[in-house]
Amino acid sequence: MTNVLQSKGQDRKVEILDAALTLFVKNGFNRTSIQDIADAAGITKGGLYHYLKSKEEILFLLHERFISEGYSKLKLIEEESLPTEEKLVKLLKTHLEIIKDYKDDITIFYKEYNNLSPENYKIVMNKRDDYESIFINVLEEGRINGVFNIENSRISSFFILGASNFMYHWYNPNGEKPMDELARIYLNIIKNGILNEKDKA
Amino acid sequence: MTNVLQSKGQDRKVEILDAALTLFVKNGFNRTSIQDIADAAGITKGGLYHYLKSKEEILFLLHERFISEGYSKLKLIEEESLPTEEKLVKLLKTHLEIIKDYKDDITIFYKEYNNLSPENYKIVMNKRDDYESIFINVLEEGRINGVFNIENSRISSFFILGASNFMYHWYNPNGEKPMDELARIYLNIIKNGILNEKDKA
Repeated sequence: MTNVLQSKGQDRKVEILDAALTLFVKNGFNRTSIQDIADAAGITKGGLYHYLKSKEEILFLLHERFISEGYSKLKLIEEESLPTEEKLVKLLKTHLEIIKDYKDDITIFYKEYNNLSPENYKIVMNKRDDYESIFINVLEEGRINGVFNIENSRISSFFILGASNFMYHWYNPNGEKPMDELARIYLNIIKNGILNEKDKA
Repeated sequence: MTNVLQSKGQDRKVEILDAALTLFVKNGFNRTSIQDIADAAGITKGGLYHYLKSKEEILFLLHERFISEGYSKLKLIEEESLPTEEKLVKLLKTHLEIIKDYKDDITIFYKEYNNLSPENYKIVMNKRDDYESIFINVLEEGRINGVFNIENSRISSFFILGASNFMYHWYNPNGEKPMDELARIYLNIIKNGILNEKDKA
């Protein structure tokens, strides 16, 4: 019985977070009130405060949710015994799927993270660093075992993640190219570069 | 005499825009008032309205200024008679210098563009498209003349610009790597990819 109630409370919380996310994307964090969020979630303001204590906590939980879920997916891949190149490919494809699935969350992350409290900002940035370090580690593994010809794993990782993350600006789920085709084009540039073989240094 | 006065007015306007930019970066567009901007620029609110008619106009002019200045620089390179690869390298190096020089402007662009009026939003997005199309054009030129081995110039351009634009999140002018070294690392990945020759398909 307790579990059912807890689970219902959890569902209600998720509904509130989802309602808040939609409003933040549409109107921005600062122009959205707790009353707006309560109205959109079909709950009273008092009822909302039963689950979440402030608008800032909602913003924090939204960030926390998508980064943690994404991190868990990448971590499972990192722990597989795969050849380095295959691991990077799998990580990047998964990262692009995460960008597709969490487009709104990512938009809000980049636009609104400076509205977090200093403590929550630190927690979110540490999780973001953990996420990035999975990519840095696999690039470093490849740099050391000679699979990758890179001189700096951290900057190369920022390059690859930057090119991918930037998709949240322009990726359209109903657009001309499905994400798996974009992933193929991106991976081709990352692995082989754009120069024709004969022109390469 | 008129010219001197006009030029003084222009300088005053630039001072107001610069003061607004600093405040927008620090506190966000919505939490900055016209009074805050006037105070920071050392002018009365009435005096400010002599030069600029609203906070939204200030945001628009900030966007307009950096995209137009960047576009002019790229356009000059596009018009030079350079071999395709050299042209792309010069464009990208210049783009990275623009990111370095206009880091604050770009931060505000990505965070606050949805605060523009629909008309100004359209003007800014058209200029952004013009900027991007310089890269799409040079990639398409290379795709056709066989210098670049890419299948889609538009997506490849978004990849390259995304990886570069994303730098505004992490580039630190006082950091370990100067921009010209980052440019060299980026260009190496774009041109040659990260796979060691022997592993390439």
